[in-house]
Amino acid sequence: MTLPAEFGLIARHFLPLAGQGGLGLGDDAALLDPPPGRTLVLAADAMVAGVHFLADDPPETLGRKLLRVNLSDLAAMGAVPLAYLMTTAFPRGVTQEWIAAFAGGLALDQAEFGIELLGGDTVVTDGPATFSLTILGHVAPGAALRRVGARVGDEVWVSGSIGDGALGLLALTGRLPEDLHLASRYRLPQPRVSLGLRLAGLARAAGCGAVIEAAAVPLSAPARAALAANPALLPRILTGGDDYELVFAAAPTDSARVLAAAAEAGVAVTRIGVFEAGQGVRVRGPDGHDVTLPSSGWSHF
Amino acid sequence: MTLPAEFGLIARHFLPLAGQGGLGLGDDAALLDPPPGRTLVLAADAMVAGVHFLADDPPETLGRKLLRVNLSDLAAMGAVPLAYLMTTAFPRGVTQEWIAAFAGGLALDQAEFGIELLGGDTVVTDGPATFSLTILGHVAPGAALRRVGARVGDEVWVSGSIGDGALGLLALTGRLPEDLHLASRYRLPQPRVSLGLRLAGLARAAGCGAVIEAAAVPLSAPARAALAANPALLPRILTGGDDYELVFAAAPTDSARVLAAAAEAGVAVTRIGVFEAGQGVRVRGPDGHDVTLPSSGWSHF
Repeated sequence: MTLPAEFGLIARHFLPLAGQGGLGLGDDAALLDPPPGRTLVLAADAMVAGVHFLADDPPETLGRKLLRVNLSDLAAMGAVPLAYLMTTAFPRGVTQEWIAAFAGGLALDQAEFGIELLGGDTVVTDGPATFSLTILGHVAPGAALRRVGARVGDEVWVSGSIGDGALGLLALTGRLPEDLHLASRYRLPQPRVSLGLRLAGLARAAGCGAVIEAAAVPLSAPARAALAANPALLPRILTGGDDYELVFAAAPTDSARVLAAAAEAGVAVTRIGVFEAGQGVRVRGPDGHDVTLPSSGWSHF
Repeated sequence: MTLPAEFGLIARHFLPLAGQGGLGLGDDAALLDPPPGRTLVLAADAMVAGVHFLADDPPETLGRKLLRVNLSDLAAMGAVPLAYLMTTAFPRGVTQEWIAAFAGGLALDQAEFGIELLGGDTVVTDGPATFSLTILGHVAPGAALRRVGARVGDEVWVSGSIGDGALGLLALTGRLPEDLHLASRYRLPQPRVSLGLRLAGLARAAGCGAVIEAAAVPLSAPARAALAANPALLPRILTGGDDYELVFAAAPTDSARVLAAAAEAGVAVTRIGVFEAGQGVRVRGPDGHDVTLPSSGWSHF
């Protein structure tokens, strides 16, 4: 019996990504001795061509986006990245070159974020390319940033800038002028792992209601220009998603510590509002009145 | 901003499956305190409609098959099942009833195998339904059954019966007469978790070459009948896959212990050949000559 072609494909493209626990990707499962005394943090996200990325996005960035979307989940919990498992459903007829570029992007981000591939599965699909990744990280027991604990009066902070991802998608699909910065932010989000680690014990994740000052939301220069040209883009900027920034709560008395943590992590953070009693998020426009936002654009059911 | 519809869908169908570490599936990631002093065992498998299951397979068994395919990876390593993460890409227009049946099947198998859902992702696809599952289990350090260590002269054992899965697919697609047993074995494989646990320290997983006696391979009564009616089915039975049985090596002097372990686990095991020097698996037909088998049917690249 000859070995199935998957084995050759996996050996060629994914074996170089495998860590020691991956057992050469030749066993039925991987082995991992978890860091003693730490709590594991686990998340899994899937991406489908035509839904979560564009079918003609470069393969070099696709694997990295998949990894970074999952890394942003670890960042939101204040966890140290550890390893990942990945399943890939490639369209029939995918080329070796395409897979090599996909794996090459993963190799870059493995080095950048200090993680390794433990295992997974490679299958074929008659539909769009579909990828799923499970990421493992770890935190000190009880130290994970949870979506609970924000108190009325806490300030709402956000990392980086908001709206670039959604505007990048518009720019890449001809609905906004081409823009390298916006396209890059859509294709290659920046998970705020380092900031998340420094916020553990300081920030509280969102959980109660909040009021956001639209004018305070940090925008990149290209996003500001797009909004100036078309003010109707505001809801898309605020709720379009694809930014993978951290939103968190901190007591007003801790603002200096938040800014210091952000400076250490090399990430900008901005106060954009305040937590209030109740549920839900209100957005106050520059005129002092609440902005009516449509339901989030990423609901598909 | 209203909550996206995914949240309602997840709360309705998947929240009842979530364990304590899943944090109500409302956080960015799950938390898990791994069993102290144990090595984690991790595997991830994906399934695509039309490739790994039939698009009209009942949703009640699909989630269970997904879980069981992954559980069989744990069984092959001799690991205790612990928890899982799952991503589901449902075709646009999937009904709440379909998802409820899918989740209901998972609930049955969670109870049967003592595991719980930690987290995951629910997305929509314009292609075939695509599911990915990452399973976590644990073993004592150094005790995992590895695909190394089989020695020349070791006996080749297999659990259960072989070929039912492949024949079940034929029966379900009109290429063999309808057969409830075969169809059930295709749709609902039986991971040999209990047997795998009892083989730790006794069995060695395959790794060197082997010669298999075709006549010794255990077949179910329906498979024997199908083979008698059409001897050309032999290669399909031997290499068609979808059985998820355990194949392992043990020293001839340990055969009584293997049989005792199997009796405790309530699983039949059968000696089907012997490990020999070299690489690859030869299959010897009833006439004493090697059978030429085609490449495995599950290569898609």
